[in-house]
Amino acid sequence: MNRLTYQLGAMLQKRRAPIIEFNRVSFVIGILLLVLTLFMFPPAITDVIASNPDWKVFAGSAFVTGFIGMMLVMMSRGRWSNEVSLREGFILTVASWVVLATFAAMPFVFLGRGLSLIDAWFEAVSGLTTTGSTIMTGLDELPPGILLWRSIIQWIGGIGIVVMALIMLPFLKVGGMQLFQTESSDRSDKFVPRAREVMGLIAFTYVALTAACAIAYGAAGMSAFDALNHAMTTIATAGFSTHDLSFGYFKEAAIHWVAFVFMFASSLPLVLYVKAVKSRSLNVFEDQQVRGFCKMVAAILIGLTLWLASRPEISLAEALRTVCFNAMAIISTTGYVYGDYTAWGAGAVGTFFVLMFLGGCTGSTTGGMKAFRLQVMLLSSFNYIRQLMSPNRVVVATYNGKQITGDIASSVLAYLSVMFASVMIFTVTLSFFGLDFITSLSGALTALANVGPALGPQIGPAGNFGALPDGAKVVLVVGMLLGRLEFFTVLVVLSRDFWR
Amino acid sequence: MNRLTYQLGAMLQKRRAPIIEFNRVSFVIGILLLVLTLFMFPPAITDVIASNPDWKVFAGSAFVTGFIGMMLVMMSRGRWSNEVSLREGFILTVASWVVLATFAAMPFVFLGRGLSLIDAWFEAVSGLTTTGSTIMTGLDELPPGILLWRSIIQWIGGIGIVVMALIMLPFLKVGGMQLFQTESSDRSDKFVPRAREVMGLIAFTYVALTAACAIAYGAAGMSAFDALNHAMTTIATAGFSTHDLSFGYFKEAAIHWVAFVFMFASSLPLVLYVKAVKSRSLNVFEDQQVRGFCKMVAAILIGLTLWLASRPEISLAEALRTVCFNAMAIISTTGYVYGDYTAWGAGAVGTFFVLMFLGGCTGSTTGGMKAFRLQVMLLSSFNYIRQLMSPNRVVVATYNGKQITGDIASSVLAYLSVMFASVMIFTVTLSFFGLDFITSLSGALTALANVGPALGPQIGPAGNFGALPDGAKVVLVVGMLLGRLEFFTVLVVLSRDFWR
Repeated sequence: MNRLTYQLGAMLQKRRAPIIEFNRVSFVIGILLLVLTLFMFPPAITDVIASNPDWKVFAGSAFVTGFIGMMLVMMSRGRWSNEVSLREGFILTVASWVVLATFAAMPFVFLGRGLSLIDAWFEAVSGLTTTGSTIMTGLDELPPGILLWRSIIQWIGGIGIVVMALIMLPFLKVGGMQLFQTESSDRSDKFVPRAREVMGLIAFTYVALTAACAIAYGAAGMSAFDALNHAMTTIATAGFSTHDLSFGYFKEAAIHWVAFVFMFASSLPLVLYVKAVKSRSLNVFEDQQVRGFCKMVAAILIGLTLWLASRPEISLAEALRTVCFNAMAIISTTGYVYGDYTAWGAGAVGTFFVLMFLGGCTGSTTGGMKAFRLQVMLLSSFNYIRQLMSPNRVVVATYNGKQITGDIASSVLAYLSVMFASVMIFTVTLSFFGLDFITSLSGALTALANVGPALGPQIGPAGNFGALPDGAKVVLVVGMLLGRLEFFTVLVVLSRDFWR
Repeated sequence: MNRLTYQLGAMLQKRRAPIIEFNRVSFVIGILLLVLTLFMFPPAITDVIASNPDWKVFAGSAFVTGFIGMMLVMMSRGRWSNEVSLREGFILTVASWVVLATFAAMPFVFLGRGLSLIDAWFEAVSGLTTTGSTIMTGLDELPPGILLWRSIIQWIGGIGIVVMALIMLPFLKVGGMQLFQTESSDRSDKFVPRAREVMGLIAFTYVALTAACAIAYGAAGMSAFDALNHAMTTIATAGFSTHDLSFGYFKEAAIHWVAFVFMFASSLPLVLYVKAVKSRSLNVFEDQQVRGFCKMVAAILIGLTLWLASRPEISLAEALRTVCFNAMAIISTTGYVYGDYTAWGAGAVGTFFVLMFLGGCTGSTTGGMKAFRLQVMLLSSFNYIRQLMSPNRVVVATYNGKQITGDIASSVLAYLSVMFASVMIFTVTLSFFGLDFITSLSGALTALANVGPALGPQIGPAGNFGALPDGAKVVLVVGMLLGRLEFFTVLVVLSRDFWR
């Protein structure tokens, strides 16, 4: 992983050449496929140890993926140069997610109880985008190899999204993340050495967090295999479980609290921990985004807990644990489930619908709108009110000490418009496949925000995506990719001008 | 009406005085109450003719309203000056809607089968904001006076919102409507004479459209009373009917087509007709907003018609009529109902949910987001995609030949943020009153967008708002006022800084 991110970092010097050289794109995708191949061995070995014949599926998938990856690298090697153009960057970003998901789907197809092509692709995309919606049932009886594979693709997807958010998106200038760039004037000069160091530290942090989470799960009472799997899908805020009941399977309160702590920790920017490692002190509240996110989460958890605890049949401790676990699972877009929160009453359904939009901080593995955009929206609105009151005074909103310029406002407006339009279009499209309103709307949202479970009896926390019509599954796959790539990365590649 | 709007226009010179002089505010509100008093006489006379004792209710309400209006005018007259400050403008705008709705609610309370205070206030606010959600049933058996009163308050609300959108909002700079101002540099000089002329023409157009609509309804087969009432609520895109079944009561296809034509006509800016009268030619497609709105409506109507006509049990003509009527009723935020479109299937529910957001053109009586904002959102998104592809090129989006500046983008972002946040907050609040998800969400939206009917069995096209808990009704009242005043007018007055 470390070497790969360095490769990616090294390539991000803006070039003037307007021609797209597919060699460069295919080279990187080849490298990524080789990395994916390596990750197919642990499930294969696990199945060998468990005397399960599925190891052949993983070995075969590894052979095919590795072969094609090698071919791509070798074909491109001759024309390799250490730079990538802006347009190549866009194609690379979109293509790498689609291609990797396709190859990651292979084991699901050739498995003992194999899935249909669409189901396998749905599961792989849901995994790699760290969404965590699943079409598989009977998880508890599945061989360990395939369960491990589901967790691994989510874990890869998690680090992938952080790399993308930190390197590719600011390079592509998608999503108003310019606010998070430290060097804006002479980025290309200093980028590579800095990126190399940052990426190494980020990979280290990601592994360390996963290890800490696994140890904590184990100490709280999980089996070693469950602890490893859930640690991977927790740190990736992804949400696949090894049990049909998800966290409802575990009765120990300690396990739920461990999950809460690490889901929260994974909603913060990974760079925060990198800084903490470098400066040997964790200053969580220095960053305006982290500060705002913590306040928002605290308000939601306290409010919901008080509401739930007001019922006679539930103790304060029980209410606190259930609320913290389930609300954090949705806010962090992990999507683990512990009991059916939609059964708490109408108020809970409305609240969890809103929570599905939020997401964590930029630079984390979470999906959704993210704290930074919510804050820019809030600050812009307040600023606008102030401006209305005093039209002759110049009022400027700032974020993390930087001005929210017209550029930032425009990019957040563009994001919000496209997010809003996408939710609407996907809702209507899904409803034309015959899904009822709550399933269509919450299904569209859960895919676009990469959350996992939706609302309603069919695909809600107690449901499963398996029974949806194939067309709806394809729509959701597109939604998950669109949301994960922050919409514009995909829209740019799909626009007509791009190919001129 | 004409004199009043001139008064309003004459007052809109920005003053430097930071002190709020409530005399000026109360003077205008007094005038408005006197106008409201005049409108209480037609229902009283109607009830006298129908030998219904309710005429006393209207006479009494008129007496109280007129008395208080006169008091306010006389108390303020001494300190009257021909100007109004910005802060007074905000207070005036918010206060006039709240006060007028309160007085308009009086007849509902003292009626033979009187409503509770909250129900009466709900009905009056729903009327004056041209929302058209009703808590009253058994309309067909009600005396004519009260039915006429419901139509009249909607008709007043309609012209009120056009005046507000044309004078107050650009003066207050709310909602990014600067794009529609013709003089931006020296507005105060030329404003009064121009406003006087424009307002006269607008009032004339409004009356003329209402008369034309009433004649068309009559010719299509409505009784004279029904034609008058429905003409008033059609031109105001408001939606109260004189029958429980709304337009389902009328079997004549011609009536539905008349309603369609005038709902569409009322979704266009009233100024368009004023220009047509002045220049003696109606050029609908000159304006980018009107052009965009027409294209959007055509696409929606054709798509929905083809979908509905694909069923064997419905003819193309029948599908076209049902779709045109119902879709236009929602897009124009009129909210008339003809049959239960939610019974067409899941696809229709999803589609009508989206339609509830849209609204007509700025400068019309419609609610919702409005075509101009949707277009700015779309243009900004396209522009952003183009900018991402060519970061070194300066790409500027234009609207009606004017640049979409950072100011405009910020104001639309602020509107969108507040609209989005409001839908979320109102949904959660309503759901905590025990309303199910679809009722909460669509109820919040129908109030904030001033549409009328929501979705779901309770408050959908076949339902009624009467059975909602009182708390939910109050929430919806706040939502209707908030949406009608374009959010920021209210938020400014509610902000702490405003009162310093």
